[in-house]
Amino acid sequence: MAASPSPANPDLAALLASRRAGHGMPRAFYHDETLYAHELATVWHAGWLFAGFAFEIPNPGDFLTLEVDATPVLVLRGDDGAVRAFHNVCRHRGTQLCRAPSGHLRALVCPYHSWTYSRQGELLACHGMHDGVDKSTLGLVPLHAEVCVDLIYVSLAQSPPAFAGMRARFEAAGRPQGFDRARVAKTIEYEVDANWKLVWENNRECYHCTARHPQYVKSNFDVYEEEHASAAIRQEIAAALARTNAQWDVVGDDAAHPKGGLATFPDPDHDLWYTCNRTALAEGFATESLDGGRVAPLMGDYHAADVGVLRMRSLPNFWLHASCDHAVVTRMLPAGLRRTRMKSFWLVDHDAREGEDYDLDRLLPFWHLTNEQDWDICKWQQKGVDSIGYVPGPLSQRKEYNVDAFIRWYLKQMQTDGTAKPLARIA
Amino acid sequence: MAASPSPANPDLAALLASRRAGHGMPRAFYHDETLYAHELATVWHAGWLFAGFAFEIPNPGDFLTLEVDATPVLVLRGDDGAVRAFHNVCRHRGTQLCRAPSGHLRALVCPYHSWTYSRQGELLACHGMHDGVDKSTLGLVPLHAEVCVDLIYVSLAQSPPAFAGMRARFEAAGRPQGFDRARVAKTIEYEVDANWKLVWENNRECYHCTARHPQYVKSNFDVYEEEHASAAIRQEIAAALARTNAQWDVVGDDAAHPKGGLATFPDPDHDLWYTCNRTALAEGFATESLDGGRVAPLMGDYHAADVGVLRMRSLPNFWLHASCDHAVVTRMLPAGLRRTRMKSFWLVDHDAREGEDYDLDRLLPFWHLTNEQDWDICKWQQKGVDSIGYVPGPLSQRKEYNVDAFIRWYLKQMQTDGTAKPLARIA
Amino acid sequence: MAASPSPANPDLAALLASRRAGHGMPRAFYHDETLYAHELATVWHAGWLFAGFAFEIPNPGDFLTLEVDATPVLVLRGDDGAVRAFHNVCRHRGTQLCRAPSGHLRALVCPYHSWTYSRQGELLACHGMHDGVDKSTLGLVPLHAEVCVDLIYVSLAQSPPAFAGMRARFEAAGRPQGFDRARVAKTIEYEVDANWKLVWENNRECYHCTARHPQYVKSNFDVYEEEHASAAIRQEIAAALARTNAQWDVVGDDAAHPKGGLATFPDPDHDLWYTCNRTALAEGFATESLDGGRVAPLMGDYHAADVGVLRMRSLPNFWLHASCDHAVVTRMLPAGLRRTRMKSFWLVDHDAREGEDYDLDRLLPFWHLTNEQDWDICKWQQKGVDSIGYVPGPLSQRKEYNVDAFIRWYLKQMQTDGTAKPLARIA
Repeated sequence: MAASPSPANPDLAALLASRRAGHGMPRAFYHDETLYAHELATVWHAGWLFAGFAFEIPNPGDFLTLEVDATPVLVLRGDDGAVRAFHNVCRHRGTQLCRAPSGHLRALVCPYHSWTYSRQGELLACHGMHDGVDKSTLGLVPLHAEVCVDLIYVSLAQSPPAFAGMRARFEAAGRPQGFDRARVAKTIEYEVDANWKLVWENNRECYHCTARHPQYVKSNFDVYEEEHASAAIRQEIAAALARTNAQWDVVGDDAAHPKGGLATFPDPDHDLWYTCNRTALAEGFATESLDGGRVAPLMGDYHAADVGVLRMRSLPNFWLHASCDHAVVTRMLPAGLRRTRMKSFWLVDHDAREGEDYDLDRLLPFWHLTNEQDWDICKWQQKGVDSIGYVPGPLSQRKEYNVDAFIRWYLKQMQTDGTAKPLARIA
Repeated sequence: MAASPSPANPDLAALLASRRAGHGMPRAFYHDETLYAHELATVWHAGWLFAGFAFEIPNPGDFLTLEVDATPVLVLRGDDGAVRAFHNVCRHRGTQLCRAPSGHLRALVCPYHSWTYSRQGELLACHGMHDGVDKSTLGLVPLHAEVCVDLIYVSLAQSPPAFAGMRARFEAAGRPQGFDRARVAKTIEYEVDANWKLVWENNRECYHCTARHPQYVKSNFDVYEEEHASAAIRQEIAAALARTNAQWDVVGDDAAHPKGGLATFPDPDHDLWYTCNRTALAEGFATESLDGGRVAPLMGDYHAADVGVLRMRSLPNFWLHASCDHAVVTRMLPAGLRRTRMKSFWLVDHDAREGEDYDLDRLLPFWHLTNEQDWDICKWQQKGVDSIGYVPGPLSQRKEYNVDAFIRWYLKQMQTDGTAKPLARIA
Repeated sequence: MAASPSPANPDLAALLASRRAGHGMPRAFYHDETLYAHELATVWHAGWLFAGFAFEIPNPGDFLTLEVDATPVLVLRGDDGAVRAFHNVCRHRGTQLCRAPSGHLRALVCPYHSWTYSRQGELLACHGMHDGVDKSTLGLVPLHAEVCVDLIYVSLAQSPPAFAGMRARFEAAGRPQGFDRARVAKTIEYEVDANWKLVWENNRECYHCTARHPQYVKSNFDVYEEEHASAAIRQEIAAALARTNAQWDVVGDDAAHPKGGLATFPDPDHDLWYTCNRTALAEGFATESLDGGRVAPLMGDYHAADVGVLRMRSLPNFWLHASCDHAVVTRMLPAGLRRTRMKSFWLVDHDAREGEDYDLDRLLPFWHLTNEQDWDICKWQQKGVDSIGYVPGPLSQRKEYNVDAFIRWYLKQMQTDGTAKPLARIA
């Protein structure tokens, strides 16, 4: 009933224009329910969302589910082996169909009136309906779904942005990691008491790492933007790159980020909502673990530890850090204006066995700790930006260029009408 | 402050018109707080609401309370023996007066400043007020109240719909059950995480019974619409009717529903928001119990078990199933857009003694189980209709004609202004 | 995004005008989120708020925090010994700075990116920012703060009302109590499920005391408006006044309220939002305790018990009752339309030692009990005024003149625009 905000809505237009260049966003972006409803439309119902892994649902009938705010989604492998996504809602009276986070089904039977769908989403039976019901028009509402390097992406949009660019990029950079030969060693779900944008802004800079992540900064050069680093640090970075370069030649990677600091992402000027890059690890770190030692068998095509860290990201809900021996993937889903659901997946080689080849006590802490440190600060930031006394401050041009880029990307999405237009165009 | 929706409000008019004939209602009807506020006005503050039983408050000063959304209501037997209803709110500063679900009071004394009301709602004393306060204008705000077959109905409307039609119908059909000689053996309250309309839609069809209520479908012919039933089922129904008919003659019932399937209700074209009918029980079922056996002494005028099941309903909040030996009454009250409070009452003859004449372990399970099965599916339906992917589907003309009737009744109510006009007119 | 209500908004103007003179306020004032947002602006973000005691933060770096609805506030003693208040929010990305209710800090370091502020609120360091950042423009956002008789007041307004009038009044009346030589023996926090205005309305009359506070009415003459009191009561009051008067001469008090009933407060016609007065205690009561006996050593300048009770109040969030031996201070903060956070402080002389000089079991019960009795009735009043059946009733001209005054004060505040204008003007 409430008038939907839109660029035609002068209030919204004024609000979008109110952000001061180079600064954070005003309070309303983290405080106003109407704005949240609008960003569901223009961001979350428009873009490509990471859902899970193809290897989690290897067989026909295997499924996984997720919820985008209040919209339940079903991802299901069909009899033909294809991964499909559907609105997880019966076409009859709207009942949610699959309740479990994952599982296997022979056919999709609605628990209410037993309407029965094939594993391709077709309505097979609706006993009890009157004659003349055209079952062919009552299949599950399909969603766009794509799989690349075993990552399943879905889009709730009618016309999602082109996927080809990301596919090409992710396949080239991700292939050596062997995601198709991986399995999930552990998942942990987190509820963050903050707007999802605060979580992304946190992710897009390592300015906070020195104070918040003492364990994280030992392993990498994220906090050292090269042009501001000391000579000693620059030498360290060069040495790490040299050590790693040999392996990069082997794995054929062209995504190297051969310096300190964070690679730029996103790039709203070129509508780039995904990225890959590979960074070197610091001396003594074979992998992103607390002690730097290997925590699992090598994955994929790697035959040595010195491959640095492969990083992949896509907006609005995915990031990944992969070392030689494991990968940690994080999925974000909004669950209200001030509530964000995070799920992290720890991946290892599919032949690795817990207790023999790896130990959760060594595999998990590095990123579980980093996650909890981040979610905590996001919660306190939410409390602050809810204040009438919050004034958006300047972003560091040295260290928060990506926060600025994220905000500009977001504001550009908010200018769209959130229905038909693509989220972004790839040249 | 928010503009109240009304037929004059073009948004609401468009929304009401947006329902496709023969289909479920669009998402907004289960998702939008403004619509919920409007249906409180046009449905819940307009119609007749079942509150409880006259026999629960037999003596002057006995009371019971209920809450219609956030509005507390008091039902009280006066010194003259009459049952009255009032807003359960002091006329002074608005404090809620009676807090308990039921009880007995000598006089109504507000716990705040001791304003004292008679058991007829008159303000008797307000010590401490200044001279000149006219107590005669400060009695409790009365609500319309009616009692028929010991069912207490209240209305929050200034001009509620005529009660006479329902009274005539309920007294004729309900008299043999002996509600005036009943008592409550047990009540159970339920909180359903679903909009109240989903609970009614669930109630108005037995299409779901096969899948959801294996125990229920054994006892009756609700799932067998005669025109679609097999010859064998038609024969079973005929035999059950013949067996029961003799008793129906005795009890003088004219409400027989002499076939399978559900009797039609409501009838929005004739503004019929109440109904009674009597159905036959299946072979082997003397009563609606899990094993079909009697679970309490005969009630009312019955002198044999074969009386089938008396069913009574009234919109928006009452239904009843009465076997020869017990009756189960269900009261619905909205408690928010996605929260509905249900209370079921198990009635037995007033002389029946627990442990001797009946056992709760045999009396309760049939309907307690049915209730829980229904509330669970309503919860999952709510999750589905909250989705942006929910598309209202076709209703079965065979099995969901009453869901369609309910929706048409509801939409007709929503066209009213919800203040002065009657909820429905009885010819 | 929602249109802010304002006097220019005809809905709000109509609502403000809808209150019937001499009666309570209509339902919307306790029920409508938009109105609540407006009263945050016109009352809570405009006036002077009691925050705590200067003696709680005696040394540079000592701080205390509070939350006004969702706005966190920091009160901090600087290196120069001055008490200052700031928005408790980092100027960089808006993170809440201090999390604890109170504590000590050497410097204010934001936990996110280590921006560092002096104890006077200046930005000292923001390592990692680009060149050219002007630190002098990025100090903490200051709030107005004042201290009088060791009470710390803050205002979130740009131009708060003049403080001088209250300071003069509080210093004259409060000096003998020796707040500067006091300490906190105990604090108790309460969450009240009611709108903050109901809590004030409850505070502004003792009409309810007879029914709700049997312990309270023994100690004082609040329930006896002299013109309506019996001759015996008038004699008692005169005797108590005579007994106390000698001490009043000693302490130089000019705030005596030399009769029964409550002193008038507030006075919206003269924009008086603060008050002090001293009342006599009943025979047998040396202090406000359950048995009337002394419960702690004498405070301040007192050298005998017969000083009655010093009462101080300021709108919108402070009241105090001080006996010869202890003082109980109550602070109110809104935490939502139907949620109010109360904190009571029991003060004793700073040299008094628990277990020797006083015992919490004797010190706390009188007001803790009174508090709980009040919060409970406020909760039930909230339930009643949320009802569609609530009709604002007449206020007793004998006993609720201060409720009427409070309502008129509130409605006058609501007429302001809540941004620049002072809350009230002192002649």
